[in-house]
Amino acid sequence: MSNRIRMGMVGGGNDAFIGGVHRIAARLDDRFELVAGALSATPEKARASGAALGLPEDRIYDDFKQMAIREARLKNGIETVAIVTPNNVHFAAAREFLKRGIHVICDKPLTSTMADAKKMLKAVEDSDALFVLTHNYTGYPMVRQAREMVARGDLGKIRVVQVEYPQDWLTRHEDFKQAAWRTDPAQSGAGGSTGDIGTHAHNLACFVSGLTVESLAADLQAFVSGRQLDDNAHVLLRFHGGARGMLWSSQVAPGNENALRLRIYGEKGGLEWEQEHPNHLWYSPFGEPKRVITRNGAGAGEAAARMSRIPSGHPEGYLEGFANIYSEAADAIIAHRSDTAMDAEVTYPTVYDGLRGMQFVDACVRSSARNSAWVNLPE
Amino acid sequence: MSNRIRMGMVGGGNDAFIGGVHRIAARLDDRFELVAGALSATPEKARASGAALGLPEDRIYDDFKQMAIREARLKNGIETVAIVTPNNVHFAAAREFLKRGIHVICDKPLTSTMADAKKMLKAVEDSDALFVLTHNYTGYPMVRQAREMVARGDLGKIRVVQVEYPQDWLTRHEDFKQAAWRTDPAQSGAGGSTGDIGTHAHNLACFVSGLTVESLAADLQAFVSGRQLDDNAHVLLRFHGGARGMLWSSQVAPGNENALRLRIYGEKGGLEWEQEHPNHLWYSPFGEPKRVITRNGAGAGEAAARMSRIPSGHPEGYLEGFANIYSEAADAIIAHRSDTAMDAEVTYPTVYDGLRGMQFVDACVRSSARNSAWVNLPE
Amino acid sequence: MSNRIRMGMVGGGNDAFIGGVHRIAARLDDRFELVAGALSATPEKARASGAALGLPEDRIYDDFKQMAIREARLKNGIETVAIVTPNNVHFAAAREFLKRGIHVICDKPLTSTMADAKKMLKAVEDSDALFVLTHNYTGYPMVRQAREMVARGDLGKIRVVQVEYPQDWLTRHEDFKQAAWRTDPAQSGAGGSTGDIGTHAHNLACFVSGLTVESLAADLQAFVSGRQLDDNAHVLLRFHGGARGMLWSSQVAPGNENALRLRIYGEKGGLEWEQEHPNHLWYSPFGEPKRVITRNGAGAGEAAARMSRIPSGHPEGYLEGFANIYSEAADAIIAHRSDTAMDAEVTYPTVYDGLRGMQFVDACVRSSARNSAWVNLPE
Amino acid sequence: MSNRIRMGMVGGGNDAFIGGVHRIAARLDDRFELVAGALSATPEKARASGAALGLPEDRIYDDFKQMAIREARLKNGIETVAIVTPNNVHFAAAREFLKRGIHVICDKPLTSTMADAKKMLKAVEDSDALFVLTHNYTGYPMVRQAREMVARGDLGKIRVVQVEYPQDWLTRHEDFKQAAWRTDPAQSGAGGSTGDIGTHAHNLACFVSGLTVESLAADLQAFVSGRQLDDNAHVLLRFHGGARGMLWSSQVAPGNENALRLRIYGEKGGLEWEQEHPNHLWYSPFGEPKRVITRNGAGAGEAAARMSRIPSGHPEGYLEGFANIYSEAADAIIAHRSDTAMDAEVTYPTVYDGLRGMQFVDACVRSSARNSAWVNLPE
Repeated sequence: MSNRIRMGMVGGGNDAFIGGVHRIAARLDDRFELVAGALSATPEKARASGAALGLPEDRIYDDFKQMAIREARLKNGIETVAIVTPNNVHFAAAREFLKRGIHVICDKPLTSTMADAKKMLKAVEDSDALFVLTHNYTGYPMVRQAREMVARGDLGKIRVVQVEYPQDWLTRHEDFKQAAWRTDPAQSGAGGSTGDIGTHAHNLACFVSGLTVESLAADLQAFVSGRQLDDNAHVLLRFHGGARGMLWSSQVAPGNENALRLRIYGEKGGLEWEQEHPNHLWYSPFGEPKRVITRNGAGAGEAAARMSRIPSGHPEGYLEGFANIYSEAADAIIAHRSDTAMDAEVTYPTVYDGLRGMQFVDACVRSSARNSAWVNLPE
Repeated sequence: MSNRIRMGMVGGGNDAFIGGVHRIAARLDDRFELVAGALSATPEKARASGAALGLPEDRIYDDFKQMAIREARLKNGIETVAIVTPNNVHFAAAREFLKRGIHVICDKPLTSTMADAKKMLKAVEDSDALFVLTHNYTGYPMVRQAREMVARGDLGKIRVVQVEYPQDWLTRHEDFKQAAWRTDPAQSGAGGSTGDIGTHAHNLACFVSGLTVESLAADLQAFVSGRQLDDNAHVLLRFHGGARGMLWSSQVAPGNENALRLRIYGEKGGLEWEQEHPNHLWYSPFGEPKRVITRNGAGAGEAAARMSRIPSGHPEGYLEGFANIYSEAADAIIAHRSDTAMDAEVTYPTVYDGLRGMQFVDACVRSSARNSAWVNLPE
Repeated sequence: MSNRIRMGMVGGGNDAFIGGVHRIAARLDDRFELVAGALSATPEKARASGAALGLPEDRIYDDFKQMAIREARLKNGIETVAIVTPNNVHFAAAREFLKRGIHVICDKPLTSTMADAKKMLKAVEDSDALFVLTHNYTGYPMVRQAREMVARGDLGKIRVVQVEYPQDWLTRHEDFKQAAWRTDPAQSGAGGSTGDIGTHAHNLACFVSGLTVESLAADLQAFVSGRQLDDNAHVLLRFHGGARGMLWSSQVAPGNENALRLRIYGEKGGLEWEQEHPNHLWYSPFGEPKRVITRNGAGAGEAAARMSRIPSGHPEGYLEGFANIYSEAADAIIAHRSDTAMDAEVTYPTVYDGLRGMQFVDACVRSSARNSAWVNLPE
Repeated sequence: MSNRIRMGMVGGGNDAFIGGVHRIAARLDDRFELVAGALSATPEKARASGAALGLPEDRIYDDFKQMAIREARLKNGIETVAIVTPNNVHFAAAREFLKRGIHVICDKPLTSTMADAKKMLKAVEDSDALFVLTHNYTGYPMVRQAREMVARGDLGKIRVVQVEYPQDWLTRHEDFKQAAWRTDPAQSGAGGSTGDIGTHAHNLACFVSGLTVESLAADLQAFVSGRQLDDNAHVLLRFHGGARGMLWSSQVAPGNENALRLRIYGEKGGLEWEQEHPNHLWYSPFGEPKRVITRNGAGAGEAAARMSRIPSGHPEGYLEGFANIYSEAADAIIAHRSDTAMDAEVTYPTVYDGLRGMQFVDACVRSSARNSAWVNLPE
């Protein structure tokens, strides 16, 4: 029989964006099979969405708790659940599965509040199940390549980290669904651009540099009249060990779609990477010409090759990067199944990354409220 | 039960490249289910590959004919087959399925010889089944966008078409499998770079421009000593209706991975597209600034949106483009199932496109043999 | 006979970099003629350098004061002087010429100390002569284009200004002359990267946006051991009127040569410009495709055309941009000569821009010393 | 006294484009002084233009022959003349100066007819004076860099040369002066795009590769109704020694300004260069990552440094490249003055390059008339 990992989904009904992405990501490498779902808080929508996905009728649930209870009892119940609801539901949903030993793959940010984040941490630590946070940009092969190069010292000691994630889709007041919940503090949490995309930028910078933020000073704005959450954030960063950085997140920068960009400079060289051209990594060893390392091309190493499916010159994109998080999760789940050690190369964003993301947003909000005073992040 | 299309595969055993691509492409949008395979001409390898893919044992076949016969009789036998063998096997395999009413999704080029190509045409015309050729680059959303813009007259009458597909992987003599069969006339056919990638360039140019080649003049070379097939081709093109063009294919151009690039110029404007940056289409209305149309971004239309899954700024790549061919095939197969008319927007490369590709290679070889004399292509 | 403006030079002896640039810039449009010089503080070097430039022997001076005195008395003495010494000499030299009615074209930053800057302001205000500061990047045609577009409202109200000027030439400790004086506070002043290139970034951001900085919060570092001045600066900006921004200057970012880059976002659109590709300006009207306006190409207007010599597609560069400052100075000097009003389009950086640059550096240093507290700039 | 080379000019009156370029190029490095001119065939215009340039009244001439005769007799008469007329006047003008021992700097193409070209060759060979043809693109530093790299074997044996020069300014019928003479066979000669820009592409390809064209096959078109000369040319190239290539010139490709681009591929690596981004040279050693060599940056050598004025990252452009031809001419003239040998590094386009350009155009026209048959170029 199929050895695929049996998966359920919470959220991700018909008109959701990120739910569809998770499903494709789970399917791409054929290691998961979606077999159950509580796809919407509205029962009719949950039913319709489940039917549209071809789920068996008896495994379409009206709410996630009911799903967790029943699936945990089924002989071939789900082994993992993907949680793709608005942020404020993440914890309540995850808890039900974690306490029943069902692995959780959760969209970011971790939760909508710091209080929930701490509860989530405890729930994960109390559970034998795995928790994977989909900071998907860490799944891009050339991000892995960059991380490998930094780790082995190609750049020397890191001095400067510049990271930014500008978008333009909230340049004006918008009423549609994606905009509505992301600009509502009750559903999103205290961070606007900081929570939605700043957390990605923060996570990416730390993932690649191997550094953690010691303190930050932030200036947040809500440029669009009536908006309750920041739509632009300027943040100074001080990393443990002495590196300095800047982070810019914006949803009001016309001409930027998802222009996440990371630049890291050390004593011996620099690296530059852009999410919109993810198959290329620019490497500048000091005193030598800048060169472009391509996914699976000359100069790319093992860390990138693990995360890549096709030869260089044929671009992989966002969905493949997202699928890589699922692929790492699959490796971890399979190892867990068989009670064997996971390969050392396997890496995925954890609850601790999620907590650090929440602390980042919290620190941004507090610093900005204190006129950009430096705020320490917890160790 | 699942409504997925039941699919088999011929070729694509363990160490093949393109078989894996077809499988991902078929899976991406969850409309196909691989249920049978004759994955290798070597029985042991066929078995091992089938098992690795989790196929039921009784649907792993030692040869494609056996598979065609048995699957045609099964109640829930395959409805379509993907043929991903070396070129010289395409026809023999396709024939077995076509004559039993099983749809064929076939890798390009159509066949290895003109004789086979004509037989393939007849086999398709004699069958009620569908035949889809995976000229996958036509599945890129911005290629669809370009085609739509040309068709509605944004460029005016087309004058000049520049298309090129340079690679560098055969710069030196290579012994590995992918190189071996592609440089062997018995398996590949008369064209080297012309057959492997020149056909893609030719197909793309015609697909977007809506034009067909009237005649061509070619200068083919095999630069690497001992190579039997062209590894570089320079081709002048004359299109029906008066447009002129150039086509360059090369496997010996260091620094080029899969640098397929199309530029089309008309009386009113120009378009430029590169496969390695497929989410961008450059549009230059004459007398106005050049602009970049992004997949799902401002300025992109329906033809691209149909072929796209995620918002602009999150790149889609090669696999998604390839999956779009499968998605179109699925639409066609579903319409065929229910005997209803296919949506007018559905388009995929057909046996006629394949035949034109073969004629293109044949004309290149003949022209080059006649010192680059102009050779007419059949109407 | 010739109507060229008679020019002298202070500094710019044989092995200087910026002196040669000023001479080419002055010569490019044939409106100046170099006729006198005090090219070095070392008399032998001053003589040798003057001779190498073909200056008449009696107009090669050992020091600038002697030059100012004698040239002011000559019938055809110099009308203007270019001052291209290290920063700490700017004021002493300029004063001598200003008080004798000789126009001054002075390299930036204005001076090495705030005290000198204020004296310079007074000296200029007390003189009838003109004072031009060579913030040369404002001479690029597409910078003029950007300024024109902002001024006429193409972007709507400005919200966000991102400006950066990274270099890598001081990544390690360097002993050569250009590095030595630029990292010596006695010659350069209180700012390292902030003074040398941060002032350019600040000036450019204000020039294009039409905004002025209200306050800033800075985090300066000297990453190279033993360096006395900042070699990296991260600065948050608040502009009068509500716009926010970030400024990054660095001399330790490997892979960056002179990567000055400005991005401005308003309610209606965005603009992006890079000094290393100065003939292109990227314009993103919100909700429309991004487009590239080229120097003298479609979409470029009068402000750029005034500053441009050759058709679009033939690149102009740094020297032409620098020459444009001289060209504006020439217009101003000619108008002054004939006591007529200057054309309204003529614009060049003034002593007030220089003062604001000094205030910018001063505020950066003070803010950084106060742990990045916000520091107001003088109105 | 000044040691500048005394220069005259034929053509280049008030509304000419290329005359102004020559004057800036001559002035940039301060090695020439324009002292005489026959700036127009129309006496009034010649007078007005001379006055506008500040020429002494007695050295403004009504025609070039008169200028040649008188200047040759003057004690400080011109040493060199720049000829910047339409093509059909080049020979008649050059002859008058060459036979009087005055060096000639002549715009390209060499002449308007093959007959004139041969006479020009004889006139040069019969004269002691120098003849410099301003194939200005060979003056770009990174073109020199590329040539040096090919010459020292960085690419190995050259296999493929792709060169193109597309423009769009003649997409429609145009009446203005620049368009009028360039599309008039009587003034321009037999080549339209081939003569005006194809010769540049041909010259550049040969200059960098060190190869010469053995034969070519061309397909020329005049797409704009009523146009007498080609506005688009597709040309196959065979070089002596076995390399193959393609050349495309077009004046009807919307979105292209002066998109001259050269790509050269050899057994060991590839090089790519674009005129619109002239400070960058892309180098791909086979099997290693592609890198960008910048003017005066890491990896750039002596041949580029000789032709460059300012540090890397500050762009030089078209005028600087053009000035480099004048700079080389100055070196040659100074050596000639003093009867010493010219430095071995000095190189400039000669009458032989000009003749090869004419032969290239002639071969294109003849090949196209013979339905793209291969035509040999003279050895």
